[in-house]
Amino acid sequence: MSERGRDDQELDLLNAFWIKTAPRRGRNVSLTERMEPHAVRRVGQDSPLAVTFAGGATGGWRVDRVEQVRGEGLDRVPRLAVVEGSGAPIPSGARWVLQGVTSNERYATEQEREALLAVQEPLGRPSATRAALIPIKKSVNWWALAQDERRAIFEERSHHIGTGLGYVPAIARRLHHSRDLGQPFDFLTWFEYALTAADAFEELVGRLRATEEWAYVEREVDVRLIREPSTAILRSPSG
Amino acid sequence: MSERGRDDQELDLLNAFWIKTAPRRGRNVSLTERMEPHAVRRVGQDSPLAVTFAGGATGGWRVDRVEQVRGEGLDRVPRLAVVEGSGAPIPSGARWVLQGVTSNERYATEQEREALLAVQEPLGRPSATRAALIPIKKSVNWWALAQDERRAIFEERSHHIGTGLGYVPAIARRLHHSRDLGQPFDFLTWFEYALTAADAFEELVGRLRATEEWAYVEREVDVRLIREPSTAILRSPSG
Repeated sequence: MSERGRDDQELDLLNAFWIKTAPRRGRNVSLTERMEPHAVRRVGQDSPLAVTFAGGATGGWRVDRVEQVRGEGLDRVPRLAVVEGSGAPIPSGARWVLQGVTSNERYATEQEREALLAVQEPLGRPSATRAALIPIKKSVNWWALAQDERRAIFEERSHHIGTGLGYVPAIARRLHHSRDLGQPFDFLTWFEYALTAADAFEELVGRLRATEEWAYVEREVDVRLIREPSTAILRSPSG
Repeated sequence: MSERGRDDQELDLLNAFWIKTAPRRGRNVSLTERMEPHAVRRVGQDSPLAVTFAGGATGGWRVDRVEQVRGEGLDRVPRLAVVEGSGAPIPSGARWVLQGVTSNERYATEQEREALLAVQEPLGRPSATRAALIPIKKSVNWWALAQDERRAIFEERSHHIGTGLGYVPAIARRLHHSRDLGQPFDFLTWFEYALTAADAFEELVGRLRATEEWAYVEREVDVRLIREPSTAILRSPSG
């Protein structure tokens, strides 16, 4: 489905389907909007978690900027809602809705994963008031490569995991897979960090974009966010 | 969603959603029910193809038997419909509906893939009047393994690809991924072969089930099929 111009009728349909089937999927539903700390999930050890990113008028993250890095961009919106669980309702009136699922590791070796797990921090840290949603679509040529070829480009030649390791625990991350869901992007990458790590995050993004792996990225949008509960209901009566 | 007892209301909802969003997904829709030859698709070179397997009263494949191999089975049904494309309507009244998507290679090396491509045949051969739909769910322990660990079990120790290579071109196959879709199975494996290859197929299935990889399979159902267009509309007026 498109990330643009999704109308309310379609959203209602999607909500109705997901809500109706949610009990059978056995997923837990939680809204990060409620500012609850994220449960610590080790990706690959649980069922895939469906996550919806809805750009629009509501949500716990205020949009600082939307940058069109490569290919078609995304409409600028004031706020972003992050909705976990396939049974959770998607905010109506969203300008764009992107969906993905956490899944098993695709490239990391046991050694690399253990190195990450030893130092990485969970999402939802109170200090992490900054976030980035960077949706990425890779080319047909990337997906036509065999597993060993993709792994060689990803790590042996582009050092994706190795580079990222230098930025944990300051930067927490979670990867969401979208390609098999028929979505416009292949991945929805999500990062959370404190304001003090903002420069480090820019450096990390810059280093990854300069790699051989990134030559296969044909669409990329960079959405920067500031954690800020909606103030609409907090205004004083005189306001 | 569950594979059992899906009611018509839910199917209508799912159909409505998929049909409404199909044009945006840009998928081609075709029904194998029409006995059209399958397009030759090199998995990984195209967008993922959504495929729905609906067990019920209609469909181009007559169900020969439904065997509960491990874990919960599937209801016995008279026929199976195989519907390609996310925009295609799912037959109403189905007893169970399983959905998956073709996707990129997850384990095969370039060398292994080239060996397969050199000899494998496409789906839809007129001589391939027999088929098997074998849905499989692997354990939490499997999905908790890193990529290199799964690869080692899959090929270096269980010889999944190497064993399969001995049975092409007689047996054509297509793998559908379901885990990230929130489905009850992780994979929907599909095989087509001529009656003369039926013994070879039994041997292949038996060899795979005896591997270390299969120790991680916690649910498996074996649905055997005979290609046979529905005769309901072919009966003579006197019949």
